[in-house]
Amino acid sequence: MFKKILIANRGEIAVRIIRAARELGIATVAVYSEADKTSLHTLLADEAVCIGPAKSADSYLNMNSVLSAAIVTGAEAIHPGFGFLSENSKFATMCEEMHIKFIGPAGSVMDKMGDKINARSEMVKANVPVIPGSDGEVYTGQEALKIADKIGYPVMLKASAGGGGKGIRKVEKKEDLLAAFESASQEAVAAFGNGAMYLEKVIYPARHIEVQILGDSFGHIIHLGERDCSLQRNNQKVLEESPSIAIGKTLRTQMGEAAVRAAKAVGYENAGTIEFLLDEETEQFFFMEMNTRVQVEHPVTEFVTGVDIVKEQIRIAAGQPLEYQQDAIQITGHAIECRINAENPKFNFAPSPGKIKDLFLPSGGVGLRVDSAMYAGYSIPPYYDSMVAKIIVHGENRFEALMKMQRALFEFEISGVVTNAEFQLDLISDAHVIAGDYDTSFLMEKFLPNYIKQEE
Amino acid sequence: MFKKILIANRGEIAVRIIRAARELGIATVAVYSEADKTSLHTLLADEAVCIGPAKSADSYLNMNSVLSAAIVTGAEAIHPGFGFLSENSKFATMCEEMHIKFIGPAGSVMDKMGDKINARSEMVKANVPVIPGSDGEVYTGQEALKIADKIGYPVMLKASAGGGGKGIRKVEKKEDLLAAFESASQEAVAAFGNGAMYLEKVIYPARHIEVQILGDSFGHIIHLGERDCSLQRNNQKVLEESPSIAIGKTLRTQMGEAAVRAAKAVGYENAGTIEFLLDEETEQFFFMEMNTRVQVEHPVTEFVTGVDIVKEQIRIAAGQPLEYQQDAIQITGHAIECRINAENPKFNFAPSPGKIKDLFLPSGGVGLRVDSAMYAGYSIPPYYDSMVAKIIVHGENRFEALMKMQRALFEFEISGVVTNAEFQLDLISDAHVIAGDYDTSFLMEKFLPNYIKQEE
Repeated sequence: MFKKILIANRGEIAVRIIRAARELGIATVAVYSEADKTSLHTLLADEAVCIGPAKSADSYLNMNSVLSAAIVTGAEAIHPGFGFLSENSKFATMCEEMHIKFIGPAGSVMDKMGDKINARSEMVKANVPVIPGSDGEVYTGQEALKIADKIGYPVMLKASAGGGGKGIRKVEKKEDLLAAFESASQEAVAAFGNGAMYLEKVIYPARHIEVQILGDSFGHIIHLGERDCSLQRNNQKVLEESPSIAIGKTLRTQMGEAAVRAAKAVGYENAGTIEFLLDEETEQFFFMEMNTRVQVEHPVTEFVTGVDIVKEQIRIAAGQPLEYQQDAIQITGHAIECRINAENPKFNFAPSPGKIKDLFLPSGGVGLRVDSAMYAGYSIPPYYDSMVAKIIVHGENRFEALMKMQRALFEFEISGVVTNAEFQLDLISDAHVIAGDYDTSFLMEKFLPNYIKQEE
Repeated sequence: MFKKILIANRGEIAVRIIRAARELGIATVAVYSEADKTSLHTLLADEAVCIGPAKSADSYLNMNSVLSAAIVTGAEAIHPGFGFLSENSKFATMCEEMHIKFIGPAGSVMDKMGDKINARSEMVKANVPVIPGSDGEVYTGQEALKIADKIGYPVMLKASAGGGGKGIRKVEKKEDLLAAFESASQEAVAAFGNGAMYLEKVIYPARHIEVQILGDSFGHIIHLGERDCSLQRNNQKVLEESPSIAIGKTLRTQMGEAAVRAAKAVGYENAGTIEFLLDEETEQFFFMEMNTRVQVEHPVTEFVTGVDIVKEQIRIAAGQPLEYQQDAIQITGHAIECRINAENPKFNFAPSPGKIKDLFLPSGGVGLRVDSAMYAGYSIPPYYDSMVAKIIVHGENRFEALMKMQRALFEFEISGVVTNAEFQLDLISDAHVIAGDYDTSFLMEKFLPNYIKQEE
C-alpha cells in the first residue's frame, strides 16, 4: 500500500479523499491555491503545498505545479478527485512517466472513452446499446437526411471535432435539416477547421441512469448498481438516488451487465461510471458517455452497497485485487443525495460566495452522512464550483430516505452565505418527486416555473 | 402512529429521539429546565415547555411537571430516554393512568427487574445463568458462611433493601466474613430498617457483555446481538463495541437466547438490555441486571444490525408489531462508540462545563455518526451529566473501525471547554485495546496508572 498520496483537488471531494486515505493509514498531501490557504482540505491534510494563484488554470489545472508538489513531498500516488485534471489523459500519462501512480484509468483508456465517436464504436462492438445515429462521421446534408429519416426526429447534429457548444444544432423536423447541417458544419469549420458532423436521435425527456463500476488491475470488473440522476438544472445534477425506481430487476441486471461489458471493452481499471439514457416507455436504454473518475454522487452507491468507493480506488491503484465478487454486492435500502451549493435560487441560482458566520450541519441518528468543505468562519472563495456540501441519507426504503432528508435539511443552518438548502427541501417535498415521477425535463420544465411563480 | 410525543429528557439522547420522531412524521415536544433554554433539544423540537429550575429534582425528575407538559401540549406518548425518569415504575404507571403512552415497558415489569433479588429468582426460573450466590435473603453470619464456602471467595455482601452503596461489603477471605456480615447488616438496619442481606460471588475481572433485545406488544421478542462494554472507569462505560471479540458463534447464540428467555420471563415489551458478566476462561456468563430502557451505547448495535432502535421503540409503543424476525437480524462489520464527555482527564476527569467557542465535529465518509448535543456558542450547564456527544464508527472489520475512530477523533476540535477526546484517542491507540485484550479491570488498573504517569 502507498505510504503517502497527493490529492490534486479541493473542496469536499478533497476532504473526502483525505479521510479515506487516513483511514487506510496513508499520509496525505493537499495542494491549494492562494485562495484556498484556509480551506478545509488544506487544514486537514498532513502536509499542504501551495501550487499557485486562485485561478484554476494557474493552480489546480497546472500539471507541472501539481507534479512538482508530488515529487517534493515524496507522494507515491495522486488522486485527482473529479473535475480539474481528473479526466485529463495527458496528466495521467505524465504521472505514469514520472513513476507516480495516477489513481484512475490509464491515459490511453481515457482517450478511448473521451472521444465521442470512438467511444460509440467501442460500445457497438461490445454490444452495448448506443443512441441511434450515424455510425461515424457525416459529410453532407443529404447523407444526414437519410440517417435522420431512419432514426426519426428530433435529431442532434454535432461537430465531430466539437466541444464548447460549437457546431451543435437540434433539429425538430425534416424540413429544417439541410439548413441546420450547412450552418453547423460551417461553424465547425470555423471553430475546429473540420466540418465533419455526426448525428444522434434526441432522447428527451428520459431518465438519466448511470451504473457505477469498479475494475482492478487483474481485469476483474464489477458494477455497484445504478443511480438515478434525472433531476438536473442546466444539465447539472441536483439530487441523485439509488436504486432508481424507474427500473425493475430485469432491466437493472441488463444495464449492470451492459456497463460491465462497456468497461471490459476498453480494459477499464479503477472506478468509473457508465451513463445511460433510459426511455421509460419502451424500456430501451442507450449509452451516453463514460465518466472515467469518481463522481460527486458516489456516496449514494456507498450507502446502498456498503462499499467505500474511494478506498477501493486507492486499493486498486496500489495493485490490490477487488475486495468483492459481483455476487457479494447487495443493494440494501434506498439512498438519496442533495447537493448543497452556495448559490441563491431566488436570483437565478447566482453563486453566493463569502464568509460563513454560523453553521450547523445536520448529524446524528441512523443513515445520515454529510460530506462538507465548510466550517464556521470559513470564507467560500468565488473562483470555484459552488458546491460546498452533500447531504446523503439512507433509509430502509425510499419513503424513509425522503423523511430523513427532510429532517436533515430542516436542521441545516447557515448564515453569512446563501445556499440552495431550502430549494432542495421544496424539491423533495414536491408530489412528483415524492412519487418518483420525474425525468430529465422535470426540474427545468415543470418544477422551476412553478417555483419561480411562487417566489414572485 | 402517534401524532405528537414528548421527550422527557435532555442532551444528546433527547436530540436523538427528536430526530427519530421527525423522520417518522411525528411532532415533538421538548421539556427543558431553566438552565436548558438554549440547549439543542429545546431548539430542535417543534414545541418546548419549561418545566422548572435547573436542579433535576425540580425539573427533569418532577413527574407532575412532565405530565402537565404532555397534557397541555396534547402529546400522546412520552419517551423517557435514559436516566431521569426512564426506569421509574411509578412514572410509567402514572402515564398509563393518564392515558399517555409511556415508551418503554409497563411499570409492573420494571419493578420485577428493578428488585435485584426478585430479578434473580425470575432468571433462575427462566433458566438464565445467574451469579452464584444466596437464593434469597440471608439473616445470619453462619448462614452466609455456608453459602460463601460453597460458591467460593471473594464474595459481595449486599443489603437486600439496599441502594446508594449502603450495607455493601466485599469479602476477600473466610476469616473476614462474620465481622463484615455484622457490620453490613447493622448498617442496613440503620439505613433501611431491615438487616436482611444477600450475597454473590465476585466476578472480577470479567467481560461486561450485554445483549440488546426488542419485544413488541404481541409477545414477539428478538435480540440484536451483543455489545462489549468492559472498558469502564468507576463503573461508567467509556467505549463500547459490537460484536465482542471475546465470544465466538456458539457463545453468542447462547447469550442471545438467554437474553430472549430473560425478557420473555417477565413479559417484556419495548427495548431493553440484559447485562451479563462473562468469565473468559471458563466461558461461563452470568446475568447481572436488566436495563429497562434505551442505552447510551445503542448506536453500535444500530450500525451492525441496521435497525433503528429508537424508531422501533416508538413503533412498538404505538402497538405495531416488530418489523424483524430473529432470522432477519444479521450482524455486519464492526462498530465502536466513544463517549465524549466535557471533563478534564488531567484533573481526575473533573467536569468541564462552560461555553463552547469553536466546534468542529468529525463528519463525512463511510460509516461515521456523531450524536451530539453541542453547537458553537452553546454553554454546557454544570448541573447534568458531562456526556455531550458520542462518536460512533462502523467498519468492515474491527481494524477498519479503529482506524475510522482514530480519524474521527483526530478531526474533532473544540475550544472553550475541555473534553476527553484526546484521552479516547490515547485509549484506542493502546496496544491492548487494539488487540481487544481488555476486561472490566483494564482501564482502571492497567491503562489509567500508565496514563497518569505519562501525563506527569
